[in-house]
Amino acid sequence: MQQPTSISAPSRAAGVGALLQLLRDGGPRTRADLVNETGMGRSTVTLRLDALLRTGLVRAEAGSSTGGRPPTAVRFEPSARTVLAVDVGAAHLAIAVTDLSGTVLAEHREPIAIDEGPQAVLERVRRAGTTLLTDLAPHPPLAGVGVGLPGPVEHATGRPRTPPIMPGWDGADVAGILGATFDVPVLVDNDVDLMALGEHAEVYPEIEHLMFVTIATGIGAGIIAGGSLVRGADGAAGDLGHIAVPGGAPVPCTCGNTGCLEALASGPALIHALRAAQRPVSTAEDVLALVADGDVEAAERMRLAGQNLGAVLAGCVNLLNPSVIVIGGPFAAAGSPLFTGIEQVVRARSLPLATARLRVVPSRTEGRAGLLGAARAVADHVLAPVAVEAMPEV
Amino acid sequence: MQQPTSISAPSRAAGVGALLQLLRDGGPRTRADLVNETGMGRSTVTLRLDALLRTGLVRAEAGSSTGGRPPTAVRFEPSARTVLAVDVGAAHLAIAVTDLSGTVLAEHREPIAIDEGPQAVLERVRRAGTTLLTDLAPHPPLAGVGVGLPGPVEHATGRPRTPPIMPGWDGADVAGILGATFDVPVLVDNDVDLMALGEHAEVYPEIEHLMFVTIATGIGAGIIAGGSLVRGADGAAGDLGHIAVPGGAPVPCTCGNTGCLEALASGPALIHALRAAQRPVSTAEDVLALVADGDVEAAERMRLAGQNLGAVLAGCVNLLNPSVIVIGGPFAAAGSPLFTGIEQVVRARSLPLATARLRVVPSRTEGRAGLLGAARAVADHVLAPVAVEAMPEV
Repeated sequence: MQQPTSISAPSRAAGVGALLQLLRDGGPRTRADLVNETGMGRSTVTLRLDALLRTGLVRAEAGSSTGGRPPTAVRFEPSARTVLAVDVGAAHLAIAVTDLSGTVLAEHREPIAIDEGPQAVLERVRRAGTTLLTDLAPHPPLAGVGVGLPGPVEHATGRPRTPPIMPGWDGADVAGILGATFDVPVLVDNDVDLMALGEHAEVYPEIEHLMFVTIATGIGAGIIAGGSLVRGADGAAGDLGHIAVPGGAPVPCTCGNTGCLEALASGPALIHALRAAQRPVSTAEDVLALVADGDVEAAERMRLAGQNLGAVLAGCVNLLNPSVIVIGGPFAAAGSPLFTGIEQVVRARSLPLATARLRVVPSRTEGRAGLLGAARAVADHVLAPVAVEAMPEV
Repeated sequence: MQQPTSISAPSRAAGVGALLQLLRDGGPRTRADLVNETGMGRSTVTLRLDALLRTGLVRAEAGSSTGGRPPTAVRFEPSARTVLAVDVGAAHLAIAVTDLSGTVLAEHREPIAIDEGPQAVLERVRRAGTTLLTDLAPHPPLAGVGVGLPGPVEHATGRPRTPPIMPGWDGADVAGILGATFDVPVLVDNDVDLMALGEHAEVYPEIEHLMFVTIATGIGAGIIAGGSLVRGADGAAGDLGHIAVPGGAPVPCTCGNTGCLEALASGPALIHALRAAQRPVSTAEDVLALVADGDVEAAERMRLAGQNLGAVLAGCVNLLNPSVIVIGGPFAAAGSPLFTGIEQVVRARSLPLATARLRVVPSRTEGRAGLLGAARAVADHVLAPVAVEAMPEV
């Protein structure tokens, strides 16, 4: 059989996503820039750019007025779509509507109990999300929903996998339940993984190796290595809380082992130790208030928690060689006693090469790392070339 | 100024690399397959394929003879180039000539002392490499040299960075010295990182999350996460040897700290402990012979080393959630006592979710993981689209 020799017309969609990616990462460009950078023909660029302009994801910039007719530049338009970002914690729910660059347009917080189970908690998410969107109306089309959960999540299906502190949630179809209401893609991920993604995107976009560590009811970490999130084979990466602390006291842990980091340095462990020392504390805020008031016992307990955390982080530094470790969660606000404790042990127990440029710093996203990460995950998903090329308008 | 409206001719080179990548990853294809999969026009595919056929990296397969004139398939031809793969250890040098798929064509091993310094050791590499290539002549063109070194390497420059067991090597221009002889790209990397790359490419290409751990004079790890090597911000990732063993004895380590994994479970630590128990051992082979002979003390020491290693690996499993941990180096041959010790602690101290599908296995590349990884690194480098598109023949 002879092969046909006619030249196929280039697919109209192929390359649209690549153009958008260029504009999203690198700022405004003229058509000539895009022809140069992609190697596509001018007519092809024009065809594809017209398709992108129709989606609203790209818009023409106003020309400069220095005389003549300057070539019009086009740029990515993050406000063309909205995202519903959801951060489900053990005891709180935070929801935000953002644009595609993570700018928060509206935000809502309420206390919850994760052990109410998925139906009840996700009903709260539906109600609060719908209210936020209604109050904002008219708003640009919703592109997707991003959800962080406080346990391991199977990335491919978005279902929680045997999450230890989420009774009733194992295998729950979170995406299906929320998708039925919002009718857009729903991405589900571990909450600390999303915090790492959010802090990285917002504060450290140029850093390749970063860890985000939360100290709260539990202790967990999100890992960025080589610029990408490390989820692990079962979505269980970053479980710092049940690593045995080298040299730590053999305190029993809720997991059945002894000497886990969580048993020594979590919020409940700190509160327990301070109560034993006759300090009337029952929340993280109480502990932080004592530290701020100069209570010596509280500062010392916070420093010890930092040392125990540092003993585990020293191993993480030897293993992963990050250049930034971000400490998040309420206790990060304890400041000096906590960070001094961490630094003492990390610097003593890690290779000099790995600590020479290492920074251990508090989170700079004001408790919004999880929301920003959820927004980022959705934006990355819906703006990926394969997704853009499948858009009905393109 | 009006924009010109003529259609640029597509760059002749752009896309050549993408075609090669398809053929390298996915087996033989016809021109029609390539048109379908790339969305390029038929004449474009023909033009680019002709360029690839001229490089020899792609060749036409003999047509099947089931009648008619079947469309000719083309395939990647790994024997079109050779690679010099070099594995420099503390006390050994291994060199191989391979093809682009890591098939070993010739191999040489000799004892060295890494503290002879870079000039003397690299002179041995030059001599042995030249001899291997001369003996093979005529051979396909040399595409590159890959070198593994027993210390941290700055990936961008290929220079060792304050390597603890390599006196005289700090900042040495290994690539420059070898490049002057072989006149091809020289890639330099940490030896255990290359072992992880080699074992992964050869045995576990479908596995996304893997650790390769060597137990020898030192203890180190190479980490594959999400399918990619994790080198860390300073090329220092994977330094298992100086992580403090939770619950381990406070034995002094060469690094100045106490209780490091290397002080408890490395080759020298094992030999020291067995000598103290009146066993006349001085090499890994001696220790392995005792274990094979059923010496109870040797088996018990090996099991304890496994438990200490397991205590550190449990933290790695919680942190990275790999699905395979490969144990390499001479002591992996100790078999059951070592692996039983590792498994006991890893299974007890890691999350059930992270260990349910975890396998801890001996290396299956017969001491060649480092060479295979060096060959793989060079192949990935010289066959990357940007490199292929810059080839003078293309």
